[in-house]
Amino acid sequence: MCGIVGYIGERNAWPIVINGLKRLEYRGYDSSGIAIADTGTFNVYKKMGNVACLENFAKDKNKDGTAAIGHTRWATHGEPSDHNAHPHSSGDGRFYIIHNGIIENYLALKSELVRRGHIFKSDTDSEVLVHLIEEIQQIEQTDLLEATRLALNSVTGSFAIVLLDRLDPSQLIAARRGSPLLIGVGDREYFVASDCSPIAEHCNKVIYLRDNELALLKQEELIIKRLDNVIQPLQMHDLELKLEELEKGNFEHYMLKEIFEQPRIVKDCMRGRIDLKVGQISLEGLKNHTKQLKAAKRILIVGCGTSWHAGLIGEYLIEEYARVPVEVEYASEFRYRNPVIGEDDIVIAISQSGETADTIAAINLAKLNGATILSVCNVVGSSIPRLSDGVVYTHAGPEIGVASTKAFTAQVTVLTLMALFMAQNRGTITSSQLIELQTELSTITSKMQTVLDVNKAVKEIAKRISAFGNCLFLGRGIGFPVALEGALKLKEISYIHAEGYPAAEMKHGPIALIDANMPVIFIATKGPSYDKVISNIQEVKARKGNVIAIATEGDKILKEIADEVIEIPAVNECFLPLLAVIPLQLLSYYAAVMRGCNVDQPRNLAKSVTVE
Amino acid sequence: MCGIVGYIGERNAWPIVINGLKRLEYRGYDSSGIAIADTGTFNVYKKMGNVACLENFAKDKNKDGTAAIGHTRWATHGEPSDHNAHPHSSGDGRFYIIHNGIIENYLALKSELVRRGHIFKSDTDSEVLVHLIEEIQQIEQTDLLEATRLALNSVTGSFAIVLLDRLDPSQLIAARRGSPLLIGVGDREYFVASDCSPIAEHCNKVIYLRDNELALLKQEELIIKRLDNVIQPLQMHDLELKLEELEKGNFEHYMLKEIFEQPRIVKDCMRGRIDLKVGQISLEGLKNHTKQLKAAKRILIVGCGTSWHAGLIGEYLIEEYARVPVEVEYASEFRYRNPVIGEDDIVIAISQSGETADTIAAINLAKLNGATILSVCNVVGSSIPRLSDGVVYTHAGPEIGVASTKAFTAQVTVLTLMALFMAQNRGTITSSQLIELQTELSTITSKMQTVLDVNKAVKEIAKRISAFGNCLFLGRGIGFPVALEGALKLKEISYIHAEGYPAAEMKHGPIALIDANMPVIFIATKGPSYDKVISNIQEVKARKGNVIAIATEGDKILKEIADEVIEIPAVNECFLPLLAVIPLQLLSYYAAVMRGCNVDQPRNLAKSVTVE
Repeated sequence: MCGIVGYIGERNAWPIVINGLKRLEYRGYDSSGIAIADTGTFNVYKKMGNVACLENFAKDKNKDGTAAIGHTRWATHGEPSDHNAHPHSSGDGRFYIIHNGIIENYLALKSELVRRGHIFKSDTDSEVLVHLIEEIQQIEQTDLLEATRLALNSVTGSFAIVLLDRLDPSQLIAARRGSPLLIGVGDREYFVASDCSPIAEHCNKVIYLRDNELALLKQEELIIKRLDNVIQPLQMHDLELKLEELEKGNFEHYMLKEIFEQPRIVKDCMRGRIDLKVGQISLEGLKNHTKQLKAAKRILIVGCGTSWHAGLIGEYLIEEYARVPVEVEYASEFRYRNPVIGEDDIVIAISQSGETADTIAAINLAKLNGATILSVCNVVGSSIPRLSDGVVYTHAGPEIGVASTKAFTAQVTVLTLMALFMAQNRGTITSSQLIELQTELSTITSKMQTVLDVNKAVKEIAKRISAFGNCLFLGRGIGFPVALEGALKLKEISYIHAEGYPAAEMKHGPIALIDANMPVIFIATKGPSYDKVISNIQEVKARKGNVIAIATEGDKILKEIADEVIEIPAVNECFLPLLAVIPLQLLSYYAAVMRGCNVDQPRNLAKSVTVE
Repeated sequence: MCGIVGYIGERNAWPIVINGLKRLEYRGYDSSGIAIADTGTFNVYKKMGNVACLENFAKDKNKDGTAAIGHTRWATHGEPSDHNAHPHSSGDGRFYIIHNGIIENYLALKSELVRRGHIFKSDTDSEVLVHLIEEIQQIEQTDLLEATRLALNSVTGSFAIVLLDRLDPSQLIAARRGSPLLIGVGDREYFVASDCSPIAEHCNKVIYLRDNELALLKQEELIIKRLDNVIQPLQMHDLELKLEELEKGNFEHYMLKEIFEQPRIVKDCMRGRIDLKVGQISLEGLKNHTKQLKAAKRILIVGCGTSWHAGLIGEYLIEEYARVPVEVEYASEFRYRNPVIGEDDIVIAISQSGETADTIAAINLAKLNGATILSVCNVVGSSIPRLSDGVVYTHAGPEIGVASTKAFTAQVTVLTLMALFMAQNRGTITSSQLIELQTELSTITSKMQTVLDVNKAVKEIAKRISAFGNCLFLGRGIGFPVALEGALKLKEISYIHAEGYPAAEMKHGPIALIDANMPVIFIATKGPSYDKVISNIQEVKARKGNVIAIATEGDKILKEIADEVIEIPAVNECFLPLLAVIPLQLLSYYAAVMRGCNVDQPRNLAKSVTVE
């Protein structure tokens, strides 16, 4: 969602913060702003639009200072505009705040503050915080750290905040609940940011703030305490992010780079986890939970967006191989549904960032009920792995493109390995089956490369699709979540209203939409439901629909009946998603480029959704 | 899907069959045809379009005959056209067939027949059947009944067929597998039809053909045998359909009539099932299964389209009150997913018609695995109730509008009663809670009437929506399936691309679609997730989206932030769907009317989907 960068030290803060915001821009970008200070000098610049707009706006202005806080915004309350951009200031203009998250009781707090004479300059919930802190500081005559602590104790909702004091630019105050925040530790300097990307080039030690902690950052001093005023020890972690992972290389967009990284990522993801000689799957993160996996009567998978689609594929694979009933839930729905869940249940949480607010809320509820929490995450050290009993990392490297691609295939790879690991532990698979499947898995990356190599054909088809405003994606069995994922990609970056459906459900409603202006993309590879999908294609053709089929190499029937065919190599049905999703990612990418959309920064969207 | 009517007797067959086709027209209507015969006279008329086109086409032509077969088609193989309309004839023009269903091995059969010199006149799978029967009849020199029996033994797929022999118009042959077919028994006359509606005005006794049965119908004789040649006894049932239930009354469309019938239907549906004095729920169809319901560790619900949405509501209610984990599956997906299912599981199948092919296939698989099958159906005596261990009927009367309305609210009512019945049996609800809930339920129909009374306001909003090509429906918790159902209605009859989403998932992708051209309809009534939904609305408003909110009466906040508000009375969260769906049904109805769509016969759609 929104992005946060702060700096305090001896260097000139402006380039550090503005470049940090550019690194964060993929998280939210409807407006941005920076407050920068030094003894005797203080400036604030805010601008609607992306970070380049801000940079341009501040070009010839005073940007001196060794302390600064910067923010890119993804609007929740109040539309994108200069005056709704962060930082927001207290009434007297002394304190400046940047904030991620949502203050749920802001309406009540605000009306109280207005009654007492505060005047608000924006429509945001965030501004309420800094007015509240100002008031407490004045009434209680405390320092800023204590005033912040007291204020946050009366707030409900989620926040990651950083405060700068115009009268004392030798310190920053930071705090979090729900939204991620970390502190980079340098030499006589500190960084604060909503994720690692803006600080990776400056330091290699980080401290992850935990919920309900606040920090005082000074050049010579770092104090972390809980909101209940108990001082916390400083737990440093190594930061292992490589700078080139944050660059586009020779690709025009991050998304395209990440699509092409997939064969390598999937290979990395399997490394050390499959062993063709021993014929066993080993997953370090699950080895202490084999007893629970053996005993499991039911598994619940929770996730949002693309991770939810990976979960649907996980359901198919786990039920197929490990023979445990699996239910997949939207993380946001799980929490509000009074779900039946207990100590014998295993919950698998899937999240690229490890910071998805809805997913965190879901596993917190499941933990309360005694369930075992396993997670599939990409960002090491993020909140969800820390809340989990066991974690299997996807090792996909930083994903910058807002539309998830390589994180998805890595999640699917991990879930495939987890399904086989469970099957091996539960004895629902023979050794020879297991070796056969691992052998096939080990060839999947070269097949993925083959699919990438034919991307020119996809470009032509993308051209046709880019002319339409709507699209349907249909699949059956394990092809259904692939269809959902294909539709989501197209939606996210090309703003074409694409929708995924189980192919057989088409007859129960969506078929009414079909005419010559509604292209229909079928996952129609050879497999158990091939004949039924062919029937569904006939039904669409009988209504003059345009059919694009993802087909198994050499399929002659589809060449006859579909308008366009994209071929992928033959593959075990269970591994189909790893291949079939690639042409759909490419289709979306090229369609979006042809429509002139900003692929890496689609409108309205945020990378990791850290508000509920 | 397709509709079938046949007649043999002493009367003039034409008016019976053509009026029967009109009654059936809601099932499928892209083309229709009739073959009519008497000794010495034989005519076939086929026409693309609705039944009125056929009637007009045959107006001044010879329509004499006391034996006739008629068909309305919903295209599966081959586009709608005169030559693809049924009946189809054998090569020598002697036998005529009408067919519902799909012949899955038709390509193989056809190429074999073509090799042996058969010439085909249509692109349908159906024509293959009559050529095959012709060939067998000629080679084996048998009668038509035996030739048909032999032919059907070599066919895979589903069928309901009726055959007329030009050389012997004293008999009809009928047979079924998978697709429904019933025989109406009159006085020296027989009717054959795909459901009761075309024959209800002519007779009051019916025989439901079972899978793999074929029948010989003559004026003086009725023989039913299985495809393995074993003669079957004749099991007559009373036909209780009232003719006025098939008429529109004072309403402009069946759909509108059915929307307004809902308060009465829901009342009928509860009659005798809730008892405020005793404080107990009684469900006749479940009383022999209380042991299984008590012991159940898991419940699976299967359905398609609107029934699947009712299932999602059922999941919420059963988990809430009876505290059993519930999983809801698309019937079509269930079968092909190698599901984990066993003797301790309960499967609840939901189907208005009781003939939905995908749902039948799903419960057949579940039966094989030993699960207990319960069903929620509207049509008494249909296939699904006959395959089930227990059934709770919805008693909604015949639903003629293709877009389901009253059947949905009746399904939701039944599922509410089932959830409370299970809770009462499992001891997960106190007597006082149960009485409280029943008391509130007994007032729901007057609240439904209140919602219907404000339908003028909805009309204005529908006018705005009708101008757009796309729409989003968002809800949380039990409001989410309501959002899905609202989107499906709009899709089905107005051809607006509407999509339903859990409100919190919007941030994970669909929000990219939002601009001034994408109206967003929120289920935003007071309840546990009200505050979160308000946040989601703020996110849409921040992106200049148009928000229409279904709100609880008197909500002031929504009046401020939403563009349009539709109020419904306050209600227990669990009963929300029964009220909230009504304005969405009306919105779709009026939007479709304003767009000039044929509400009762939307393009491409079929009422009960009897092919997979």
